[in-house]
Amino acid sequence: MQKMSKIKKDTCRFILSLDIGGANTKVSLLKLDLEEYIKKSEDNLISSYKNILSSSTHVYSDIQFFPFWDRKTEDFNHVLKEIKTEIEKIITDDNNNRLQPNYHVVVTVTAELSDAFYTKKEGIVTICDSLRKVFNESEVRFINVHGNFIKITDAIEDYLSVSASNWVSTSLVLGEREKLGILLDMGSTTLDLIPIKDGIPVTIGKNDVDRLLNYELFYTGILRPPVSTVAYNVPFRNSLCPMSFEEFALMADVYLILGEISEEQYTCDTVDGRGKDLQNCYARLSRIICGDPDMITREELDQIAHDLYIKQKELVKDAITRAIDKFIRRFIVPKSRLRFNITGLGAKILLEPALKELGIKEKQIFICELSEIEHIVSTAICLGVVYLKSLVDHFLYERDALIKKEQNDNVKEE
Amino acid sequence: MQKMSKIKKDTCRFILSLDIGGANTKVSLLKLDLEEYIKKSEDNLISSYKNILSSSTHVYSDIQFFPFWDRKTEDFNHVLKEIKTEIEKIITDDNNNRLQPNYHVVVTVTAELSDAFYTKKEGIVTICDSLRKVFNESEVRFINVHGNFIKITDAIEDYLSVSASNWVSTSLVLGEREKLGILLDMGSTTLDLIPIKDGIPVTIGKNDVDRLLNYELFYTGILRPPVSTVAYNVPFRNSLCPMSFEEFALMADVYLILGEISEEQYTCDTVDGRGKDLQNCYARLSRIICGDPDMITREELDQIAHDLYIKQKELVKDAITRAIDKFIRRFIVPKSRLRFNITGLGAKILLEPALKELGIKEKQIFICELSEIEHIVSTAICLGVVYLKSLVDHFLYERDALIKKEQNDNVKEE
Repeated sequence: MQKMSKIKKDTCRFILSLDIGGANTKVSLLKLDLEEYIKKSEDNLISSYKNILSSSTHVYSDIQFFPFWDRKTEDFNHVLKEIKTEIEKIITDDNNNRLQPNYHVVVTVTAELSDAFYTKKEGIVTICDSLRKVFNESEVRFINVHGNFIKITDAIEDYLSVSASNWVSTSLVLGEREKLGILLDMGSTTLDLIPIKDGIPVTIGKNDVDRLLNYELFYTGILRPPVSTVAYNVPFRNSLCPMSFEEFALMADVYLILGEISEEQYTCDTVDGRGKDLQNCYARLSRIICGDPDMITREELDQIAHDLYIKQKELVKDAITRAIDKFIRRFIVPKSRLRFNITGLGAKILLEPALKELGIKEKQIFICELSEIEHIVSTAICLGVVYLKSLVDHFLYERDALIKKEQNDNVKEE
Repeated sequence: MQKMSKIKKDTCRFILSLDIGGANTKVSLLKLDLEEYIKKSEDNLISSYKNILSSSTHVYSDIQFFPFWDRKTEDFNHVLKEIKTEIEKIITDDNNNRLQPNYHVVVTVTAELSDAFYTKKEGIVTICDSLRKVFNESEVRFINVHGNFIKITDAIEDYLSVSASNWVSTSLVLGEREKLGILLDMGSTTLDLIPIKDGIPVTIGKNDVDRLLNYELFYTGILRPPVSTVAYNVPFRNSLCPMSFEEFALMADVYLILGEISEEQYTCDTVDGRGKDLQNCYARLSRIICGDPDMITREELDQIAHDLYIKQKELVKDAITRAIDKFIRRFIVPKSRLRFNITGLGAKILLEPALKELGIKEKQIFICELSEIEHIVSTAICLGVVYLKSLVDHFLYERDALIKKEQNDNVKEE
């Protein structure tokens, strides 16, 4: 019995997840007591993301603004240091200062695509250098596009396998609930279209280029696309008016005008540095046809906003149609059997109506709703959960081995 | 004879023209000796822009970078002060320090559209304030969209008539050569499509919104449009690859790759702050499908660049077709009788092939070639020429009146 007590010590695990994007680094700190988790789920010892997500505590989350293209990329370690200081304080408080703060660091990156870096390789190497300077290298793992966790040295070696890996953990966690279908995750910037079979993502593309080519990634979102990338013209005074290509307004302005998002949900910067209030959104939108708020009425701008929404929906419908066609051809299933898990800021705004217009039945659509903060750091949370599952699985494996060994020993002693 | 000698004094005129855009203020200083001009053109005393352009001396030109959206707009007078200092030195040198520097200031503006200003009115007022602080207000004139020169107070009063007036002087000067047709001026940012009848611009739109609606302004150019505003996808590995909307590459990168422009002609900023060399242009273009220069070959990028050129040409062809249709309906002339004066950086690159593909005959197309610096400050030069013509006309009118009066006096004396 001596031996059993050993594994009861320090069964708490803290996971710091970093979702390092080109503009923001999203941070999540999860805590799971392995022993508690196992006690609670005695009936069903097979670990699942769902169980782990509901059993772990989301201790802390944060967003650090660090636009790589606008800073010295080497300075990224200052951001990491701040994060480190903050979470070590939290962990130390949590264990009543009894122990050294102990935690794992898991990382997913998309920042390497930023044009701050000449190549993706340069991006991964720079970020790894910063991570090494700040954290204990042996505790740092990158998730790769195959869903495995690899060390920093391996991440540098196989930099393409960790590039643009932000969709992996989300699709593992959310896909688990799905037998057969497509996970659609539309955020501020992009739409992920992840084919799922037997709860596992079965994507073809393993880098962004191939994901674009295979309609597993579609580059449009609810907030950041300039309206000039969604349409060439808008209806205006009984005519179609060609637009300016200048970055005068974003889709965030459009959705705020349409009442689909709040000012709080407008989390990206405005293009003119002015406020996110309705009046300024209207002013920005008026400039896309070289007008100003004096020249164009709100009713006219409402119509323009609605039309831009329709046009973005058409783009999204086209992408979804291609993703469905690919899926049906690959797995030889009728469209009516497909299930669609939709999530992200765009789930209700764009994905649900788009799917319905494509003839998808209500019963095939499942909305995965997250709280606002979960939305924003959802990738970081999912990343933590995926890593926790690997720890739990390992813990269970070792525990079973130990129990078996003890039983064997007992048998021998008897 | 005493009286005649009076008008011989100080017949030199200096015109400082300012083309105040959102990012750059383009400066041109023209000099014309009225007496000399009249002597030379004795045979044909009817002044023409062409004669004035060839008789005047282009003393000085300059481009001042002042991105209104990135600065305190009130600081614009510092730019004007620098210009003032420079040109007054030139004028004083020119007249051997004998006279006070004497010159007219003529202004055309597009900067009011910048989202540095909440409304166009705010833009015009701010710019007028700066002009007043620096120059002698009585010498300053704005050109309005009707081709008239108005004082600062009137410009503020009727701010819409001076907004986006940069096409007016160019179309007056270049249109003069044209009996019936369309002047196409494609620069770094926009394409002007100006209907001309009997040498005079007969545009319908008098502000940018109406010009867009009437296809007299089309917002695409050779340098500044992000490629994501020209197409939604590009051919790649036997497929069509949807693009990222991020501002990863401009059409300037495309045309440099295609060998259509030189690094010197790439006069706008690069999006990543790197060089304008071929290698960096390729790198930027590779990012539009989320790649990098390691992942995508130059041959593939050449194909993408060519396709983007084709797609921009299609957009331009569509705009020209609509402009032609409008013209034909308005003036009831067959398409075969229309003449096309084409100018600007895009004349040979895009406009000429676009027109030919639209079935326009070679003999209907006239290319107006300018030297490189003339290209860039062409609006400022044309503005100066238009103002000079009004001075010449006034001078001729007064001279004729004086001569007649003297003849009458002589008759009486006799």
